Amino acid sequence: MNRWNEYIVKNKNRFLEELKQILSIPSISNDEEYKTQMHLCATKLIELMMQAGFDIAIIEETSHHPVVFGKKIINPELPTVLVYGHYDVQPPDPIDLWHHDPFDPQVIDGSIVARGASDDKGQMFMHIKALEVMVKTGSLPCNIKMIIEGEEEIGSPSLPEYLNSRKELLKADVILASDTAMISMEHPSIETALRGMAYMEVELIGPNRDLHSGVYGGAVANPINVLCKMIASMHDENNHITIPGFYDKVKELSKEQRGEIGKLPFDGTEYKKELGIKAVWGEDGYTTLERAGIRPTLDVNGIWGGYTGEGAKTVLPSKASAKISMRLVPDQQPEEIANLFKAYLQQRCSPGVTVNVKYLHGGKPIVTDTETKGYQAAVKAIKATFNKEPLKVYSGGSIPIVALFKEILGLDSVLMGFGLDNDNIHSPNEKFDLVNFYKGIETIPFFYKYFSENKS
Amino acid sequence: MNRWNEYIVKNKNRFLEELKQILSIPSISNDEEYKTQMHLCATKLIELMMQAGFDIAIIEETSHHPVVFGKKIINPELPTVLVYGHYDVQPPDPIDLWHHDPFDPQVIDGSIVARGASDDKGQMFMHIKALEVMVKTGSLPCNIKMIIEGEEEIGSPSLPEYLNSRKELLKADVILASDTAMISMEHPSIETALRGMAYMEVELIGPNRDLHSGVYGGAVANPINVLCKMIASMHDENNHITIPGFYDKVKELSKEQRGEIGKLPFDGTEYKKELGIKAVWGEDGYTTLERAGIRPTLDVNGIWGGYTGEGAKTVLPSKASAKISMRLVPDQQPEEIANLFKAYLQQRCSPGVTVNVKYLHGGKPIVTDTETKGYQAAVKAIKATFNKEPLKVYSGGSIPIVALFKEILGLDSVLMGFGLDNDNIHSPNEKFDLVNFYKGIETIPFFYKYFSENKS
Repeated sequence: MNRWNEYIVKNKNRFLEELKQILSIPSISNDEEYKTQMHLCATKLIELMMQAGFDIAIIEETSHHPVVFGKKIINPELPTVLVYGHYDVQPPDPIDLWHHDPFDPQVIDGSIVARGASDDKGQMFMHIKALEVMVKTGSLPCNIKMIIEGEEEIGSPSLPEYLNSRKELLKADVILASDTAMISMEHPSIETALRGMAYMEVELIGPNRDLHSGVYGGAVANPINVLCKMIASMHDENNHITIPGFYDKVKELSKEQRGEIGKLPFDGTEYKKELGIKAVWGEDGYTTLERAGIRPTLDVNGIWGGYTGEGAKTVLPSKASAKISMRLVPDQQPEEIANLFKAYLQQRCSPGVTVNVKYLHGGKPIVTDTETKGYQAAVKAIKATFNKEPLKVYSGGSIPIVALFKEILGLDSVLMGFGLDNDNIHSPNEKFDLVNFYKGIETIPFFYKYFSENKS
Repeated sequence: MNRWNEYIVKNKNRFLEELKQILSIPSISNDEEYKTQMHLCATKLIELMMQAGFDIAIIEETSHHPVVFGKKIINPELPTVLVYGHYDVQPPDPIDLWHHDPFDPQVIDGSIVARGASDDKGQMFMHIKALEVMVKTGSLPCNIKMIIEGEEEIGSPSLPEYLNSRKELLKADVILASDTAMISMEHPSIETALRGMAYMEVELIGPNRDLHSGVYGGAVANPINVLCKMIASMHDENNHITIPGFYDKVKELSKEQRGEIGKLPFDGTEYKKELGIKAVWGEDGYTTLERAGIRPTLDVNGIWGGYTGEGAKTVLPSKASAKISMRLVPDQQPEEIANLFKAYLQQRCSPGVTVNVKYLHGGKPIVTDTETKGYQAAVKAIKATFNKEPLKVYSGGSIPIVALFKEILGLDSVLMGFGLDNDNIHSPNEKFDLVNFYKGIETIPFFYKYFSENKS
């Protein structure tokens, strides 16, 4: 057992207690009501980073939620790794499906259960603890900078401005982020691609007030019926998206690339069983892993209108609304897709209603270069602790920031995530297995080791 | 000015104050939370009915909300009119669109504004005051019985049992009800038909939990998308309803009948302006009045699912739900239509989701016979106070009880309503014009007069 492991074993309970402190702060970025909680969480991180051994850790104000920045410079001549993470979380809704308070973290069956446990507080915190391990064992082989943003779940609106204004401060050789999942502990993997996103909100307005569905029903367009027709029309019978131009920029994968995906371990029966569904769904001509990874999507994330209380109310509502997000793949552009979406709805809106479409936020899809030193260092690090070659995975998720890092800082990102697909991120009872948590802390130091060696 | 008018003028302010007392009680029948308020309202009615001059007024318990019954028997040999009304109201939602507390009745621009003002507390109360007028002026020409139910807005579930158990108590010659609207004060009208209804609640269940739309989007059926597809498929491009068998029992009206409807005063431009819509909507081949009166409909009254809070949440929800009601015309049967609706959804449900369909309540469509003494008495009464022949109108609304009266008590109903289509019933800021309120109190005594003369 190396010194790193010894240190981890000796301090593992404290590591967990500190993680609980972060998880107990409801840092929900999409709701103004939590603005002070966001600051509280950032302040808590500063404190923990300083204790862990960073030289400095500061709160950087932005036009919205603050960014936490810290650094540990041992020698300017040595390579520098910029670690990325985020301390904001998704809202806990639907709150009633949680088995306990989402912000009262509890260890259940070997997992820490709380909103943000895996996405991303638990994974981000692994890096703070990995730094502590190396500093306290005097074995840090490179410089480390870390930014922890508070807007990942809302599309990082103020980050571009922040990155542009801090190019010198953030100077580094590579980005290392743990905000993704592995296939399993038996099949460690690295995500080499992320889908982009265009998140829209649609409001349909019909009559100027709610109407009696008996007096007006049949003669006045019902905004809910019309909204349903519009949403339904966005997929054809093969579950292809019908918005004109939607697929124009989609880069089809090569036979070889799709072959690689086909070789990934995937148990369709287990997949359905775990989700409690009788059948999978999706675009004709693609496998489940392809549908969830390399193909664009259009999902209604929320819909509301009319009477939703107990019992019956015979109303023909004045309004109907929906939140609709599209996952994008190279080389679809979020703003372009958002405009196509808008145009589609406006052109097809029945004359009896008016439609308002808002583009809430978006992010570009990305594919990482697996030939870089950073990626190879991650491969070696995972081999060192898992004794297995990590698999390449196309992730269905989105981390808009990764594209920004490339554009603004010119840096490649390595997505060395230790979560699992069944962590219930964005869902009730989100969890992070403690074995993954500690495995991450154990693996990260190897990344620094190999990345520094590689440097030449 | 006759004695009746003198009495009305002398007491009009008190009449209004008493109405306010009833309107201030939130007797919302579809929500268990208001059970005590329902009783409170029934008790208040008893008190006001006794003051008005009924011999007896009692609360009759049922398996759900109580029925209020009162009678004034002056001579068993004389004809008896059974007056029907309801004291329950629709929920005030959406509450934020009201200009004041819906249960704090206020007179604004000559109208009393409150939930239930027109539907049906205001109209029901006209009958209590009309009785007072005749009793206090010693001019009541017949016996009067009155039942005021508390379940009209939820489909009168316990009324059939009540009627069956009170056949003797409710013995009468005709039913008189004021729970409908006239075209306008310039165009008094009587509704000669009512649409029926089948009110359904649909729940779609996909995955066993809310999922991350990035990790699973595109590979797992989204219950909201599927629900929208199913709802959209229920109307074809001509806005005909596509449920197989839906129109099988629809009785098409004759050229003559449709011709009569065509002659009714209707200003399409005013109609659109008043509703704030650019265009009307509906089934090809029918006029607006026909679509809203003699044709069956399918309207989504409410829909909900996924994330509906502020900002963005990238969730692929586990569930989606909708409340959907169908207005029915002769001779569609509610239970049959409910079953066709169920079968349609179950057969078309995508394999990735399961669908649950509940039949909340229903009522049969009816057409009243305009040759009866009751109908003719109403025509004369309206002529006496409006100096105009009332027009015949096919109402789009539903009063399930009317069919029950015919079936169980063998009695025809006369729908002599004094509301207006713009009373905002079931909508925010429901109102009842005071001129209509007093006109109703003035007209009802003439109905008793002519109905008693007619009796032979």
